Amino acid sequence: MSPLKPHEQLAALLADDMAAVNAQITQRMASKHAPRIPEVTAHLVDAGGKRLRPMLTLAAARLCGYDGHYHVHLAATVEFIHTATLLHDDVVDESERRRGRPTANLLWDNKSSVLVGDYLFSRSFQLMVETGSLRVLDILANASATIAEGEVLQLTAASNLATDEAVYLQVVRGKTAALFSAATEVGGVIADASDEVTQALFDYGDALGISFQIVDDLLDYGGAAMSLGKNTGDDFRERKLTLPVIKAVALADAEERAFWVRTIEKGDQRDGDLEHAMALMTKHDTLEATRQDALHWAAKARTALGKVPESDLRNLLMDLSDYVVSRVV
Amino acid sequence: MSPLKPHEQLAALLADDMAAVNAQITQRMASKHAPRIPEVTAHLVDAGGKRLRPMLTLAAARLCGYDGHYHVHLAATVEFIHTATLLHDDVVDESERRRGRPTANLLWDNKSSVLVGDYLFSRSFQLMVETGSLRVLDILANASATIAEGEVLQLTAASNLATDEAVYLQVVRGKTAALFSAATEVGGVIADASDEVTQALFDYGDALGISFQIVDDLLDYGGAAMSLGKNTGDDFRERKLTLPVIKAVALADAEERAFWVRTIEKGDQRDGDLEHAMALMTKHDTLEATRQDALHWAAKARTALGKVPESDLRNLLMDLSDYVVSRVV
Repeated sequence: MSPLKPHEQLAALLADDMAAVNAQITQRMASKHAPRIPEVTAHLVDAGGKRLRPMLTLAAARLCGYDGHYHVHLAATVEFIHTATLLHDDVVDESERRRGRPTANLLWDNKSSVLVGDYLFSRSFQLMVETGSLRVLDILANASATIAEGEVLQLTAASNLATDEAVYLQVVRGKTAALFSAATEVGGVIADASDEVTQALFDYGDALGISFQIVDDLLDYGGAAMSLGKNTGDDFRERKLTLPVIKAVALADAEERAFWVRTIEKGDQRDGDLEHAMALMTKHDTLEATRQDALHWAAKARTALGKVPESDLRNLLMDLSDYVVSRVV
Repeated sequence: MSPLKPHEQLAALLADDMAAVNAQITQRMASKHAPRIPEVTAHLVDAGGKRLRPMLTLAAARLCGYDGHYHVHLAATVEFIHTATLLHDDVVDESERRRGRPTANLLWDNKSSVLVGDYLFSRSFQLMVETGSLRVLDILANASATIAEGEVLQLTAASNLATDEAVYLQVVRGKTAALFSAATEVGGVIADASDEVTQALFDYGDALGISFQIVDDLLDYGGAAMSLGKNTGDDFRERKLTLPVIKAVALADAEERAFWVRTIEKGDQRDGDLEHAMALMTKHDTLEATRQDALHWAAKARTALGKVPESDLRNLLMDLSDYVVSRVV
């Protein structure tokens, strides 16, 4: 097995395409009139992250044999949508750090984050119009609506103990999986792949995104948290119901339920509450059950790609789904 | 002359179409999963306003002889984009009242305003994709980018005394005219009008929007302000450079310039400053010069429609451009 991780191997295989995407991003975030725009965008774009979403689009298009150049537009589109949602998320969550750096809303202000986010949405919209594909536009319009609806849903559902696994899944699709699945699906569409292959790419992105988010939520209560720049228990302190807690609430007796009502619904948290929450999740084995769910979705992602002709890229995407959950294996 | 104002006559002529637009808006703002969305949207949509922008789209399509139903989609699109920008504007401006009612950011919170705004953008995007017209998508994508760029520009240019009339015009196009011109242009495009007529509709919307905004900025220092639900001098207190002040700054001597630097750039405002600002604008006659600019753009709007075949609707649109400036005549 290569010492490189799957996303690093993908990055190596797609290096030329990714360079074109980065050039496109730099060009499109320029603004002659409003220098605040590239300042704010560069702060976030340069901070890096793995550029996972645009890589998914490039890989999907290439493994379908695409040899045009619109996959670069679409990859940049996907990264712009992602960046725009991060800018708005940080305003909504009143975050102060992202990827180990101060957030834009802290460095500039909430106004800039809201408006530059809007600008990036509109730039992404222009990029996809340039592909001339109504089907691509349809997919990305629907993904945008799912993302926005999921965010609003999270706002109202987050601290509500009635939130069950079905609602959690909707929130996760909005928060993460809708953009993953759109990213892979439009890669297939721009390459004029068969309906079966395009559907498989969608299913892969959807399942990969769900497992990715479940792992993230699990790590918030787990050991490897520091590597994410997130502190253990953040979700608990922010009264966000995620899968490990939702499962614990479902299995709670009256006394335990009262604990969750006080700490999550009412937000009355005291010293030792996080430790008690962890103890309840351990008692009901919900961290392990959550891990099993993540593995299930990762396996689903791998299986979906079985319908796509074999290639190095396809195999790397399969490995990527295993890698995502390897953080909690 | 009819006792009805031009926009009221337009509303009467287009009553069936407007009913269809309102039905479309109600249907599209629904969300099965996130009831916060229709709550926030309804608060703003029900507050009314004149529905000027969707009416422009309907009128433009109809006067070009359109007899399909996508003009309703496009009118709803335009209203959703407008509503989304209002939601985000109120967050950015930290506004507490709009159209005489508490703003959504005050009634709910900034988070809801940001995210519901994003949702409405994505819904508008879905609506326009349904028309199947790439040209319509191109126009609205470009308008969205101009709007967002103008908003960011305003953020950085508003209190900067170097802001001149050219920058002001860019801000005004972003703030108002870009959506007006897109609203009229897509009406022509969906009706498959000639390039000449479509261009005339664009020019009309652009000039109408500019005169509309100049009048608004003028009324902020003028007599009829109360009818807008805005208090005289708000822009001064908020340190927003608008046309009457930009013209006064351009004509200022050293002492006057020091006054503008202190009050606008530094934001150090004291009792009597607004009165002194008004006196300087009166001294340099900039309120009258601003009024002349508004009249100039209104005349340009009327002239543009000269290239469009005569009809009741066309004549009403011409009258509308006169009506907009009649507030300051």
